[in-house]
Amino acid sequence: MTGTLTVAGLGPGSDALVTPEVTAALAAATDILGYAPYVARVPLREGLMLHPSDNREEIKRATDALRLAAEGRHVVVVSSGDPGVFAMASAVFEALEAAPQWHDLSIRVLPGITAMLAAASRIGAPLGHDFCAINLSDNLKSWGTIEKRLRLAAEADFAIAIYNPRSASRSEGFARALDILKDAGCGERLLIFARAVSTSDETIEAVTVKDARPDMADMKTLVIVANSTTRRAGRWIYAPRSVR
Amino acid sequence: MTGTLTVAGLGPGSDALVTPEVTAALAAATDILGYAPYVARVPLREGLMLHPSDNREEIKRATDALRLAAEGRHVVVVSSGDPGVFAMASAVFEALEAAPQWHDLSIRVLPGITAMLAAASRIGAPLGHDFCAINLSDNLKSWGTIEKRLRLAAEADFAIAIYNPRSASRSEGFARALDILKDAGCGERLLIFARAVSTSDETIEAVTVKDARPDMADMKTLVIVANSTTRRAGRWIYAPRSVR
Repeated sequence: MTGTLTVAGLGPGSDALVTPEVTAALAAATDILGYAPYVARVPLREGLMLHPSDNREEIKRATDALRLAAEGRHVVVVSSGDPGVFAMASAVFEALEAAPQWHDLSIRVLPGITAMLAAASRIGAPLGHDFCAINLSDNLKSWGTIEKRLRLAAEADFAIAIYNPRSASRSEGFARALDILKDAGCGERLLIFARAVSTSDETIEAVTVKDARPDMADMKTLVIVANSTTRRAGRWIYAPRSVR
Repeated sequence: MTGTLTVAGLGPGSDALVTPEVTAALAAATDILGYAPYVARVPLREGLMLHPSDNREEIKRATDALRLAAEGRHVVVVSSGDPGVFAMASAVFEALEAAPQWHDLSIRVLPGITAMLAAASRIGAPLGHDFCAINLSDNLKSWGTIEKRLRLAAEADFAIAIYNPRSASRSEGFARALDILKDAGCGERLLIFARAVSTSDETIEAVTVKDARPDMADMKTLVIVANSTTRRAGRWIYAPRSVR
């Protein structure tokens, strides 16, 4: 009995953004593990075992998934967006590193549309030139690291996709990030708040960094700070291809 | 007669990575424009007009697409990967900015799986922590800008996805990039060469930056320079979620 473990990205919310290979993996699964709201997106069917869990339990979830696969199950761990971007793939490999007995398991990672790509597409092309992605959660790194990266990204004139700008437990971080960006001379850059992209709750709003308020972001928001050359074309916002 | 313009991402190569909304847009199109190898990926059908073009003609292609849409056609401009990442979306909005008469056209951008996400998924999760994406083509920016960004990205300890590391006309840039990374203290970082990901020609190779040779990359290669904390777990490479 040979089990498999698949780490699959469900995209930002709409089923129209789920890749066919992810849809096929879900259809072949015996067990689905993931944060409860993502597990709830998987079509139910007879015999499919759902294992929803809380969002602070990544390593336990990953270990459970590896164990089920080792027992011969066909396990899919679901993430929203792309599983390799601030999501479950790193947790699965972290759990795997600690468990050499499972190193020969059949594992696949299936990419998905990560939030920044979906957000950018709704407003134009703010990631059309060089860019970076920074997770603002300080659960797993120090605020000093976050601040250093924001300052270097501003100096590099990267567009900056900010994941997890706010959570219920952390209301201060995004306010500090805005202050750092203003201090780094980015006050006139455009900043895009993209909330619940591709769902019925979607909202997109663009302001300058100096006019952005911390309460404009919530747990469902992806923020993109445009680079300094980014312009408007009608209702659209885009980064020109050329920079001199 | 109301035309539409859709800028669609075909993903890195496999049809299993094309989103359902892109597949639907292609099925509803009257005209397909794009770089010839990408147009060749679109299923042919009676009455569908194909407009393949060369890869140095982005603005002309974008303007042609806008004009066709203004004439009432249902136009899809295809990119590989994601159209908003070093691809056609920026060119379309650049052409649109210069043509106010077309600002009310119905335009959509449909995201796709960009090369770095597909590449990362095949080797593990090297983009699981903060990262950046840099286009090494110096057609549209100076080498000074590229060098500055590489140095700042190294200092920030971002994983670095390098798009377009080599082309037939530019064999020097990637060699210089490797020298800059070594000079910036990244010699021991892992570097991943991901070629033709998701196609039958796919190859994935990981070495350290100091052991990387310029000729290991070609026009079909996406390079990922891992961050300094990136580790191996069995045959996989991943960025731990936690950095202190």
